[in-house]
Amino acid sequence: MENRPLILVTNDDGISAPGLRMLISIAKEFGEVVVVAPDSPQSGKGHAITVSTTLYLNKIDIDPEVAMEYSCSGTPVDCVKMAVHEILKRKPDLCLSGINHGSNSSINVIYSGTMSAALEAGIEGIPAVGFSLDDFDWNADFEPTKTYIRKIIRNVLENGIPKDVVLNVNFPKIKEEEIKGIKICRQAKAMWIERFDKRTSPHNREYYWLTGEFVNYDKGEDTDEWALANGYVSVVPVQFDLTAHHAIQTLNTTWNINE
Amino acid sequence: MENRPLILVTNDDGISAPGLRMLISIAKEFGEVVVVAPDSPQSGKGHAITVSTTLYLNKIDIDPEVAMEYSCSGTPVDCVKMAVHEILKRKPDLCLSGINHGSNSSINVIYSGTMSAALEAGIEGIPAVGFSLDDFDWNADFEPTKTYIRKIIRNVLENGIPKDVVLNVNFPKIKEEEIKGIKICRQAKAMWIERFDKRTSPHNREYYWLTGEFVNYDKGEDTDEWALANGYVSVVPVQFDLTAHHAIQTLNTTWNINE
Repeated sequence: MENRPLILVTNDDGISAPGLRMLISIAKEFGEVVVVAPDSPQSGKGHAITVSTTLYLNKIDIDPEVAMEYSCSGTPVDCVKMAVHEILKRKPDLCLSGINHGSNSSINVIYSGTMSAALEAGIEGIPAVGFSLDDFDWNADFEPTKTYIRKIIRNVLENGIPKDVVLNVNFPKIKEEEIKGIKICRQAKAMWIERFDKRTSPHNREYYWLTGEFVNYDKGEDTDEWALANGYVSVVPVQFDLTAHHAIQTLNTTWNINE
Repeated sequence: MENRPLILVTNDDGISAPGLRMLISIAKEFGEVVVVAPDSPQSGKGHAITVSTTLYLNKIDIDPEVAMEYSCSGTPVDCVKMAVHEILKRKPDLCLSGINHGSNSSINVIYSGTMSAALEAGIEGIPAVGFSLDDFDWNADFEPTKTYIRKIIRNVLENGIPKDVVLNVNFPKIKEEEIKGIKICRQAKAMWIERFDKRTSPHNREYYWLTGEFVNYDKGEDTDEWALANGYVSVVPVQFDLTAHHAIQTLNTTWNINE
């Protein structure tokens, strides 16, 4: 039993999210599970960390098959940092984040607390995978994802992930028998065209809600958006070295920085 | 006058930060300036957006040479979205973020609200640069940065930035005459080793402060950390396509995803 992998599970929808419970139930099949997840929903928190206020941890006992479970008052990235540097005695063998209620494909990776938690684990040198289902419903049906999550975890544990890379896994909202398989993809070039819904408060002050329309400019058939639209589970390898290496030479040749 | 560039200026230290005022004063030399900055400090907010609460905008009139100035109750990324999709009639020609009080070199790019604002502008197709000084002091001396910020803005306007790339510019905390020049760099491989400072509140509840030590593992002389330590202004081209393209082939050859 001592050789079972230590698996850290987190998310951004918060400790009570059904997607987290589903991911915990699958993780338990593969190893000893420790959960550290936000005590409230943290969608869209990106790679935020808590530096100007304090953090709280609350021990939770709801699943006797989980080694340790905590909720944390911080962001998803805070949860990973607290797990690794405060709660756990040794570095986890794997970090799983999700299952997110809503897609984190293409540009959404950069806004996503789910993926930022996975990236933070990657920065810490822990193999990490974020899982998301293209369904924002709190009662979304996560059953069709199980077979593929198991397959992905098995591959991570047996075949590994390239160094300094974490995986962004997204599931289409379709029945299990409609899923055609897994595709390794690149991030589609897409963005949100925002629209601000302007309203007036009961106290006569104007305020705004951020809304928007998702636009995919990318016609490639090697993207996560293509895979999801065509019935595949998309797996995008993601990195936290943000350097645009190709641009270094361009800048050195086109810019006059020494004049 | 109508052909003067439209320059959006933002930051993450908030509307009243001296670093923002310095950047505005330089930006005015190059074009028509519009400021949309957070109404409170937003350090470490990463690419967070505000989706579950409302947003407020406040018009500000403190600088008659600025075309429009607003503070926003949201994150740095919210500020850019509001500027582009709610406040401005046309897309800015340039977005400048900063000058941040504190370095955003190496891995800090991913936690930085300053750089996330610049990245958001990049996603919107706006040439964008984030500026940071390696000095957290509210009264930091930004004077030595002026010559180099002017040089960088001039190059962006005249020679451009490669498509889908934004610039992460960091200044060492040294005197202007000690600065050796500008270096185009890659992001150093470095990270924070966190330590949580555990305390007990007056109400007898345990809480934590996130602290940590920055560790640079990277011995390369082409990194931003090397440049800063050796008296150079570092310029790292940064991208928002997070795909680890090299890992796609590795996963396709080493993983068994179709079994």
